[in-house]
Amino acid sequence: MALDSIETVISELKALLGERLSTGSSIRNLHSHDAAYATPAQPDAVAFPETTEEVSQIVKVCARYKCPVVPYGVGTSLEGQVIPIQGGISIDTSRMNKVLAVNPEDLDAVVQPGVTRKQLNTELRATGLMFTVDPGADATLGGMAATRASGTNTVRYGTMRENTLALEVVLADGTIIETGSRARKSSAGYDLTKLMIGSEGTLGIITKLTVRLYGQPEAISAATCAFPTVDDAVNSVILAIQSGLPMARIELLDEVQMKGMNIYNPDLSFPEKPHLFLEFHGSDAGVAEQVEAFGDIASEFGGEAFQWATKTEDRNRLWEARHNAYYAAMSLRQGARPVVTDVCVPISALAEAINRTKAEIAEAGLLAPVVGHVGDGNFHLSILIDPEDPGELAKAKSLASSLNKMALELEGTVTGEHGVGTGKMPYLIEEHGAAMNVMATIKKALDPDNIMNPGKMVQIN
Amino acid sequence: MALDSIETVISELKALLGERLSTGSSIRNLHSHDAAYATPAQPDAVAFPETTEEVSQIVKVCARYKCPVVPYGVGTSLEGQVIPIQGGISIDTSRMNKVLAVNPEDLDAVVQPGVTRKQLNTELRATGLMFTVDPGADATLGGMAATRASGTNTVRYGTMRENTLALEVVLADGTIIETGSRARKSSAGYDLTKLMIGSEGTLGIITKLTVRLYGQPEAISAATCAFPTVDDAVNSVILAIQSGLPMARIELLDEVQMKGMNIYNPDLSFPEKPHLFLEFHGSDAGVAEQVEAFGDIASEFGGEAFQWATKTEDRNRLWEARHNAYYAAMSLRQGARPVVTDVCVPISALAEAINRTKAEIAEAGLLAPVVGHVGDGNFHLSILIDPEDPGELAKAKSLASSLNKMALELEGTVTGEHGVGTGKMPYLIEEHGAAMNVMATIKKALDPDNIMNPGKMVQIN
Repeated sequence: MALDSIETVISELKALLGERLSTGSSIRNLHSHDAAYATPAQPDAVAFPETTEEVSQIVKVCARYKCPVVPYGVGTSLEGQVIPIQGGISIDTSRMNKVLAVNPEDLDAVVQPGVTRKQLNTELRATGLMFTVDPGADATLGGMAATRASGTNTVRYGTMRENTLALEVVLADGTIIETGSRARKSSAGYDLTKLMIGSEGTLGIITKLTVRLYGQPEAISAATCAFPTVDDAVNSVILAIQSGLPMARIELLDEVQMKGMNIYNPDLSFPEKPHLFLEFHGSDAGVAEQVEAFGDIASEFGGEAFQWATKTEDRNRLWEARHNAYYAAMSLRQGARPVVTDVCVPISALAEAINRTKAEIAEAGLLAPVVGHVGDGNFHLSILIDPEDPGELAKAKSLASSLNKMALELEGTVTGEHGVGTGKMPYLIEEHGAAMNVMATIKKALDPDNIMNPGKMVQIN
Repeated sequence: MALDSIETVISELKALLGERLSTGSSIRNLHSHDAAYATPAQPDAVAFPETTEEVSQIVKVCARYKCPVVPYGVGTSLEGQVIPIQGGISIDTSRMNKVLAVNPEDLDAVVQPGVTRKQLNTELRATGLMFTVDPGADATLGGMAATRASGTNTVRYGTMRENTLALEVVLADGTIIETGSRARKSSAGYDLTKLMIGSEGTLGIITKLTVRLYGQPEAISAATCAFPTVDDAVNSVILAIQSGLPMARIELLDEVQMKGMNIYNPDLSFPEKPHLFLEFHGSDAGVAEQVEAFGDIASEFGGEAFQWATKTEDRNRLWEARHNAYYAAMSLRQGARPVVTDVCVPISALAEAINRTKAEIAEAGLLAPVVGHVGDGNFHLSILIDPEDPGELAKAKSLASSLNKMALELEGTVTGEHGVGTGKMPYLIEEHGAAMNVMATIKKALDPDNIMNPGKMVQIN
């Protein structure tokens, strides 16, 4: 945008926010990238609002000068969602981090968008309740809703889509809307809550969320289990899902990933074989029943070396190891940079999808451990490349592209949980065809000047 | 619309569909009303397409002449959704009634919109799978998705929102889109599936659905249980939900409704007290555990006269009695017509909501049995009035209006599952405020000539 316009925007926002509008280069730099490796771009300024009303006023100023507005949580997105590729104002929600209400009787909580999932669970500890969506990173709930995040618990408890009852959103003209109520269901009009979830700041800025909570289960048991082949592990998952076993977590880590886990954390000494990491929730008797049923399934497919974790600290260690998978993968190759993929397919196609993928990895001569939320049919590669080697980058991009095409051929999706940002935009047309025009129509109708996180999700001409 | 235009539309559609375009008065009359009592209005003609392509062509013809298009399933909507209040073409989906695919490994099925829920469950019988959404009436799946229907199983298995993975939709210009894939989750763009669910034909016509299935539980047990007061019954429900008991069904019928049940079916002889009708799904041991846990809760609140139904035919009788509640209510007053309400509130507010409602019924001197999917916080009145008495109708409308306001005051919604149609439009602005403008913006953007079920859901000026 024109230099004089952005200067006017900044001076009006300074008047509004004082010190809470920053043009300092380190702050701008911090808001120029996310957790992956898309090309960084700095905002012209970073705003730190404390109230919904302030967010509304910021957007009104920006709307007047057609200045881009990009919401920012803690920057753990993986497809460039928070990068202000056209400059403008980064709206950092870190000062909107209050849990506004916990309603134990209704199993819901009302939070500001800057509350992180760990913070919420810490505040819930005394209530016996839990918030279940767990993308690994300690992301903000606003960011998680904006990217339709999910994670290890999704097979049992759902994604942000199922766990968000209502939102408060600031629209492109600064209007504040509420998209729903605290009722568990409603047929009252278009589902604006679900429209905003996964819209990555391109339709509005989330300023409040009402989320579902669950009672902490009476009993929890977790385990790791080794399998002779990835196929055996995946077939165990498929059979468990089809049997209706209500597993709380069921995660695949292939033999390459397991090697990385052992390197990254010398306290670990897993067999270098494909593993499932599992968790069961329920009553004491219910968990015992699930454990037995899963044991029967696993033994059909050669599952062995079960390691059980029933004590809280052992379980925490197990899931901490799983959540460090990204860093563990990187320890397989010093100085490597990972190109991360995120396909999700119907579970019946999962074994084929992973087998074809591993064959392609081998053929390309790449190093790419596999981890996945396999109960949902979702798996990731960390393709480890030398960032200085354009040939490797090209190979990695070609593998990722081939994987995305395969997911569509198998009636799946190119992104199970990481979202679109700029990284997945080229594949969205292949996935959605004519439906992309509907998305563009909605975007243009709700943000006619294209100021809300412009250049993301849908291409506006 | 102008007489010559509608004649042109009809002649073009005749050329397309032959005998499957009807202008006969009995057919038009059949498509002039739904299962409730909104003012009927006839379509100018009724089309019976057999393929998505035909639906697309019908809509293209109508779009050319700005002729209203109103989808019709089996006419069991309750807020006037299928009534062509501005005339035009009623698109009857009864010939699009094929189950296109059942994918037992993925626990999903792909169906045409005219498939009814009972038809789907009959076709699924040999697979050991079930489709769970159960609004009572044997509605079509297209209609159920269009109205975001739910019903007795929702407390455990969710509404049409949670049970629809993807849709094929014909838009206002005849374009055919797919809104999703068979993947269990996706972050690939705006959630058009959820936008279309509950849009009641105002944004597009659903021509195919991919729905979730569940394995039939190993064990099912159902029961009825009488309570001294409605408060006791509702407090049992609240405690059961808060304890995390995974009940499959938990339905309230008050003492007035139970009296109607006994009159309607002389084989029944329930105590004329508030009842809960319950169902538990799980393993043998799991169901036994749930039954015991619920028994403990019920006995705290004076629950008694448990009648258990474990045999399939006994369970079917129990739920048939529940599904006939609407007719049973009418048998309380010969010749009466019911005005039906549908509020849904957070469960912590449920006892207060029902108590206040029963006090208002008494004060107004009306007869209005209460039934409800109380596990979701959703309950209905059938306010039984003399259709010839304008005073009674006014009283009933005033009660319904007061109930809707109360639901909003208690952070709930004016419609838990019946939808908007024309009946709930006046309350939608109160519920959504500025968000109604967003709905209108979306409607205008996707249907600029306002031909898709015009006059419903959102007011377009």
